[in-house]
Amino acid sequence: MLEDLKREAYEANLALPREGLINLTFGNASAIDRAKGIFAIKPSGVDYAALKPADMVLVDLDGKQVEGSLRPSSDTPTHRRLFLAFPSIGGVVHTHSSHATAFAQAGRAIPIFGTTHADYFFGDIPVTRKMTPAEIGGGAYEWETGNVIVELFTQQKLDPQDFPAVLVNRHAPFTWGHNVAKAVEVAVAVECIADMALMSLQLNPSLATIEPELLNKHFKRKHGPGAYYGQR
Amino acid sequence: MLEDLKREAYEANLALPREGLINLTFGNASAIDRAKGIFAIKPSGVDYAALKPADMVLVDLDGKQVEGSLRPSSDTPTHRRLFLAFPSIGGVVHTHSSHATAFAQAGRAIPIFGTTHADYFFGDIPVTRKMTPAEIGGGAYEWETGNVIVELFTQQKLDPQDFPAVLVNRHAPFTWGHNVAKAVEVAVAVECIADMALMSLQLNPSLATIEPELLNKHFKRKHGPGAYYGQR
Amino acid sequence: MLEDLKREAYEANLALPREGLINLTFGNASAIDRAKGIFAIKPSGVDYAALKPADMVLVDLDGKQVEGSLRPSSDTPTHRRLFLAFPSIGGVVHTHSSHATAFAQAGRAIPIFGTTHADYFFGDIPVTRKMTPAEIGGGAYEWETGNVIVELFTQQKLDPQDFPAVLVNRHAPFTWGHNVAKAVEVAVAVECIADMALMSLQLNPSLATIEPELLNKHFKRKHGPGAYYGQR
Amino acid sequence: MLEDLKREAYEANLALPREGLINLTFGNASAIDRAKGIFAIKPSGVDYAALKPADMVLVDLDGKQVEGSLRPSSDTPTHRRLFLAFPSIGGVVHTHSSHATAFAQAGRAIPIFGTTHADYFFGDIPVTRKMTPAEIGGGAYEWETGNVIVELFTQQKLDPQDFPAVLVNRHAPFTWGHNVAKAVEVAVAVECIADMALMSLQLNPSLATIEPELLNKHFKRKHGPGAYYGQR
Repeated sequence: MLEDLKREAYEANLALPREGLINLTFGNASAIDRAKGIFAIKPSGVDYAALKPADMVLVDLDGKQVEGSLRPSSDTPTHRRLFLAFPSIGGVVHTHSSHATAFAQAGRAIPIFGTTHADYFFGDIPVTRKMTPAEIGGGAYEWETGNVIVELFTQQKLDPQDFPAVLVNRHAPFTWGHNVAKAVEVAVAVECIADMALMSLQLNPSLATIEPELLNKHFKRKHGPGAYYGQR
Repeated sequence: MLEDLKREAYEANLALPREGLINLTFGNASAIDRAKGIFAIKPSGVDYAALKPADMVLVDLDGKQVEGSLRPSSDTPTHRRLFLAFPSIGGVVHTHSSHATAFAQAGRAIPIFGTTHADYFFGDIPVTRKMTPAEIGGGAYEWETGNVIVELFTQQKLDPQDFPAVLVNRHAPFTWGHNVAKAVEVAVAVECIADMALMSLQLNPSLATIEPELLNKHFKRKHGPGAYYGQR
Repeated sequence: MLEDLKREAYEANLALPREGLINLTFGNASAIDRAKGIFAIKPSGVDYAALKPADMVLVDLDGKQVEGSLRPSSDTPTHRRLFLAFPSIGGVVHTHSSHATAFAQAGRAIPIFGTTHADYFFGDIPVTRKMTPAEIGGGAYEWETGNVIVELFTQQKLDPQDFPAVLVNRHAPFTWGHNVAKAVEVAVAVECIADMALMSLQLNPSLATIEPELLNKHFKRKHGPGAYYGQR
Repeated sequence: MLEDLKREAYEANLALPREGLINLTFGNASAIDRAKGIFAIKPSGVDYAALKPADMVLVDLDGKQVEGSLRPSSDTPTHRRLFLAFPSIGGVVHTHSSHATAFAQAGRAIPIFGTTHADYFFGDIPVTRKMTPAEIGGGAYEWETGNVIVELFTQQKLDPQDFPAVLVNRHAPFTWGHNVAKAVEVAVAVECIADMALMSLQLNPSLATIEPELLNKHFKRKHGPGAYYGQR
């Protein structure tokens, strides 16, 4: 069932190593069918080279595996938590891409220094607080990983459409979009932006973030009712 | 019409991802026919893999689209402003190449530290001032982007043939040449020079720029009446 | 004899340049048959492009070459020392991969900053003490290289299964695993982890290492009786 | 004439972009026939993709072009100066490879931090003094470039076999070997060593260079009468 959804998730998972976002088997992508409340996700620890569309595992929003002989990604509960909290998103991507992960390891948001960043995000790419020992060791680690993301967006009143990515502290980035192909594109953007931010910080360790009018201009040029970038 | 011009612009646009200068769809190249006062430019937000020569959009120097069913790059007014101000140039390239953009984001010129740089530029690769809220929000943002470039070259009396590139503050590089293929070559040079300058700065944060006699020798070896590099 | 073992060692050696771990001919991989006490290793200084399975040299645990017309890698005594000291390992890999070697040259362990690292190692990737002039010049340099590794693991009571890699001071990394393919995978992980650690240190030179509960969670998620990552 | 020599030089020139040592058309390789006193060198400013063996230009040790319709590389006098001063060498390579050039631009030798470096060089990779205005502007710039290299080796009593590379201050590396293929290999090593040295310096800006006994061991393991690395 849901062959198109599985193929969509499969294509997104294959895009991750092709775009240089994956080291070893770290990373996974999922796509959701909102009408059915079911998402397709990569199986756990399977080599990208051996992956087939039929290997995608179907999971519902209660966390029940509804199809597939393989076990789903161990990060499945994090994806599920995000699908539940952010109803507008259609796909989630998780990578350990090098530059973004370096920021996550340092527990530091990726500061918004230029228009490349402003074309995708309406501010810094945020980083979660550290997880507590109880959240880590209580038996629902991956679900709690989703919870600290949702907590951050709730407390800081961030719109997931304005901020389609987050860094999990000590861990790595998660990204999303209206579909999983867009979530992959955002994952590419996060890595590229992290790379450039690191270099700009080398040039000026106390560099201020972008001026609000330029942020507003570039983000709105591509998003929302006044957008005029691309073909319509 | 102008099939050769469209093909020239097309080839230049394709060269950008091949040379590693493009992340996602950031970047565009244009080529002008000076006799007709018309330039060919990449359509807005179209994936490089899907681009065809016939997709190139023709625009005249008044900014009127004279051919093409697709919308031209949103950066078209910046290209037009440069073609108007710098009559000797035949092509313009815009990228968000990583190292050059890191300098632009930091609002810092790329200092001239060696002969690689001196083979292309007669000094530092300059950076514009920041744009004002009025320039950004006044409805002609991309045209005003061109204006701050032209203002810089006018005020500092820079010859666009001696300085075939600029960093737009908080944004990214623009390059140009007597034709668009040369503008692509300069875009490659800018990225490579930015990479090496960043590393030289790591080795010596207060490194002085190149001695004037060596700058003069290397630039003149390749440019102007005394040039002796290459085949003639 | 031992054609499968030679092929296994051959495939591992070929993987090293493909994974970007090798500069020039620096690096080698070996696989052991524990029942026979014989290991297969790359011949010394042979170009990877020219390598054939039959070129693999067979050496026993006393250091005697038991098959092969080529001389074994000059690092053979280091591999042998590790096979003798760590009975649970089936393969050893040595590279000069750039980022890991930069840490080795600086005599610095790779600090554990995030979950990518914790998925492979139960703490920092350790670095040996410097070798003494007697160890270096006494005629058994490569054997003594193995000895300083073994000394480190003995003195610090490190389990080679919890710490499947080491940096030899001033030199480069060695990795191992239950078979040589796993040792190659660890070598890829070490390089990737070193790259990210270097960037995290740039962001925060006094960054603390990962919290013990998160280290424990991620390492145990993939290793030991409670592991639940991957397919079983 | 000298078809084998031209092919040898041609192959070496082609290896430079393949090994990632060349940006744009910066770089050239030459091979000498010592019996005839003639060397083959890349023509000036020709694109690597268009290069043919027959394009190689033959020049004698007096600087006279003895064959070839194209002009030789503008760096030809530097190559000639090195062939005259260092009778044991059979090939010269010049690149602007990024990391090595960053050290050259900073006027800094590449410090010897580890065994990778010691396998190729018997100490730091030296950097020349800056050239004087007279040397730069006196009409024999490229010959004088060779002179400052030779002066350095003479004054510091460096053996070109122990130190098969140099950084020209503000410029870039030159390497050499008993033949031009070896000079290419050394150029690869210089770039890789520069990359790792830069990272080791980031980890410890005041890092001491390698201990003499380890330098001696690794260099002699590969060079001279006691060498035991590789096949014999």
